[in-house]
Amino acid sequence: MFELHHTDPHTKARRGTLTTDHGTIDTPIFMPVGTVGSVKAVHQRALKDEIQAQIILGNTYHLYLRPGNEIMREAGGLHRFMRWDLPILTDSGGYQIFSLSGMRTLTEEGARFQSHLDGSSHLFTPENVVETQRILGSDIMMILDECPPYPADRDFVEKSMHLTHRWAKRGRTAFLNTKPLYGHRQMQFGIVQGGTYPELRKESAEFMASLGFEGLAIGGLSVGEPTELMLEITDQNTSVLPKEKPRYLMGVGTPSNLLHAVARGVDMFDCVMPTRNARNGTIFTGSGRINLLNAKWKHHHKPLDESFPSDLCACFSMSYIHHLFKTKELLGLELASKHNLTYYLRLMEEIRNRIDEGTFHGWYESAAAESEKKV
Amino acid sequence: MFELHHTDPHTKARRGTLTTDHGTIDTPIFMPVGTVGSVKAVHQRALKDEIQAQIILGNTYHLYLRPGNEIMREAGGLHRFMRWDLPILTDSGGYQIFSLSGMRTLTEEGARFQSHLDGSSHLFTPENVVETQRILGSDIMMILDECPPYPADRDFVEKSMHLTHRWAKRGRTAFLNTKPLYGHRQMQFGIVQGGTYPELRKESAEFMASLGFEGLAIGGLSVGEPTELMLEITDQNTSVLPKEKPRYLMGVGTPSNLLHAVARGVDMFDCVMPTRNARNGTIFTGSGRINLLNAKWKHHHKPLDESFPSDLCACFSMSYIHHLFKTKELLGLELASKHNLTYYLRLMEEIRNRIDEGTFHGWYESAAAESEKKV
Repeated sequence: MFELHHTDPHTKARRGTLTTDHGTIDTPIFMPVGTVGSVKAVHQRALKDEIQAQIILGNTYHLYLRPGNEIMREAGGLHRFMRWDLPILTDSGGYQIFSLSGMRTLTEEGARFQSHLDGSSHLFTPENVVETQRILGSDIMMILDECPPYPADRDFVEKSMHLTHRWAKRGRTAFLNTKPLYGHRQMQFGIVQGGTYPELRKESAEFMASLGFEGLAIGGLSVGEPTELMLEITDQNTSVLPKEKPRYLMGVGTPSNLLHAVARGVDMFDCVMPTRNARNGTIFTGSGRINLLNAKWKHHHKPLDESFPSDLCACFSMSYIHHLFKTKELLGLELASKHNLTYYLRLMEEIRNRIDEGTFHGWYESAAAESEKKV
Repeated sequence: MFELHHTDPHTKARRGTLTTDHGTIDTPIFMPVGTVGSVKAVHQRALKDEIQAQIILGNTYHLYLRPGNEIMREAGGLHRFMRWDLPILTDSGGYQIFSLSGMRTLTEEGARFQSHLDGSSHLFTPENVVETQRILGSDIMMILDECPPYPADRDFVEKSMHLTHRWAKRGRTAFLNTKPLYGHRQMQFGIVQGGTYPELRKESAEFMASLGFEGLAIGGLSVGEPTELMLEITDQNTSVLPKEKPRYLMGVGTPSNLLHAVARGVDMFDCVMPTRNARNGTIFTGSGRINLLNAKWKHHHKPLDESFPSDLCACFSMSYIHHLFKTKELLGLELASKHNLTYYLRLMEEIRNRIDEGTFHGWYESAAAESEKKV
């Protein structure tokens, strides 16, 4: 279902398409995060028509807790529940168990955790996260993994990785022994772990590649390690991962990170950054980051950039946008969220075009540096 | 600028049009409240295209404090600031001084108050609220009035009313002696006070009618008095007010109140209820009010009413809408706010059509009773 069309001769950047029963995705691609069945502050229609998202991500941990599997099954899966007819990827909940749940216990069987909402106790196993994602009906599901913190010592990371590997085998078996519920096909991606230890990463990548997953994710990064290290590990991983499978770098990242990771052979990304930063008043532009709360915008009575296809840039003055954030108006959250996602999706489009045209390698480093500026 | 086309022979309901330089409004009309330059959670495009608002209201008190007159003047007025090219009515700030500001002192000169934001001291006078509304550039501005609480004794209300009358004369003089700043015409409406005392109300209505305002508002109601009393006072007031001027019942109200007030001769309304209730999870429908947080919607996997032109009703299942409110997703606030405003505007449209067709009198009381139900 993944077709690799073209690899940049100067970098490891790749152009491909990933075909699902809900449509074909052009890679490299960024997936907006719709945590609990909604990309925060953005209407599904805007996501499709204005932002032109090709695929979105749902969080199994959140959706399992609310609305829960019973409601989701009755609804006929996440596509129908949220009325989104393009592809959806769901994670396995592993990462949220480690980042959100206060209490958790890991055993061979799985991960027991307390809900961050009401303290109730739940068990995620490699098998039941497949079942939950069958109920969600995502086009791409992820295996249950353990995500070690950074820094963590080698012994801990190695043991954790081997647990993830055993879980991966069980997860793959569960996937192969069950069927989709709603008539459309589902894929399953493995997740490479191994912390920041190159040998472990290599072992994990080779192991995951051996299990026949439809795609492979690079997990356990963007958890506090320096950017250079994250990119180095990514680079090592993509050299080991099979060329014919899509590679998904989980939870990354800034526009600069996306550019550098594409150059290192990554095909898919997700991150809450565009929407979360938007709600805090930070927007991304081609010439850098802008703090909408900065008083300098008070007297700026023109649109920021009428050529950019977001309402924040083209329809309203910066003075008005600044005012919306000062007065905490909900419209400001909508406009900034839509702007940032539009920026991310347009960036990925430019990346794809430049790989096609052969101008990616001469451009991405300066584009990355530019995007890091503070305007 | 106001044309009275038709008066219902069975009730006092009126059909008219009010023409401003930003367009013609069909009356009776409801004006969505855009407190600080944004109708909360609703994009201007949705307000115009989906909700089909014909005129909106801005609050002078809020806009004077933020962004303030300097920015507003630089921007070229509120229409340009918020990119809204249909009519705008602004209040004078009188009501907010009494409802929001902790400290206030009334003198003959005007109302001194402390900002609810930072405690800074400000003075509103009959003259400077005209000036501020010249800067806002609203199509319709309101005079400064004192809004007495309910209940209040007759002496207090009478003294307060006479102060409002003296302010009204000064406000009208200031209006006639100043000019619009941005090339489009502005109107000024007087405000009838007199609490719940019929003789005072009559005196106030006659006095306000004598000053030549382009329209007249019924003020000081919907401040805690019983609905029956509010409607009785409204009925008495419209019997005194000149037929050829539009009548605006300030801050009212529920769908039922709108229906009953139209039957008593009111042409214009504003209220935060549709948007505020929406944010609390209450929506209005033709068959009553719905609490979106009610657990009974959890398993309701169909849209509420596919024939109603709001996304909340037609695009999403009630289970999903319920879920958005349970998880406090911003999309829920957008959908419910747009729904309630659409409901209010469609209700006014039906009212107008029924007055035209002569079916208003046989319908409005049952429609009002129906709208009060809890579904």
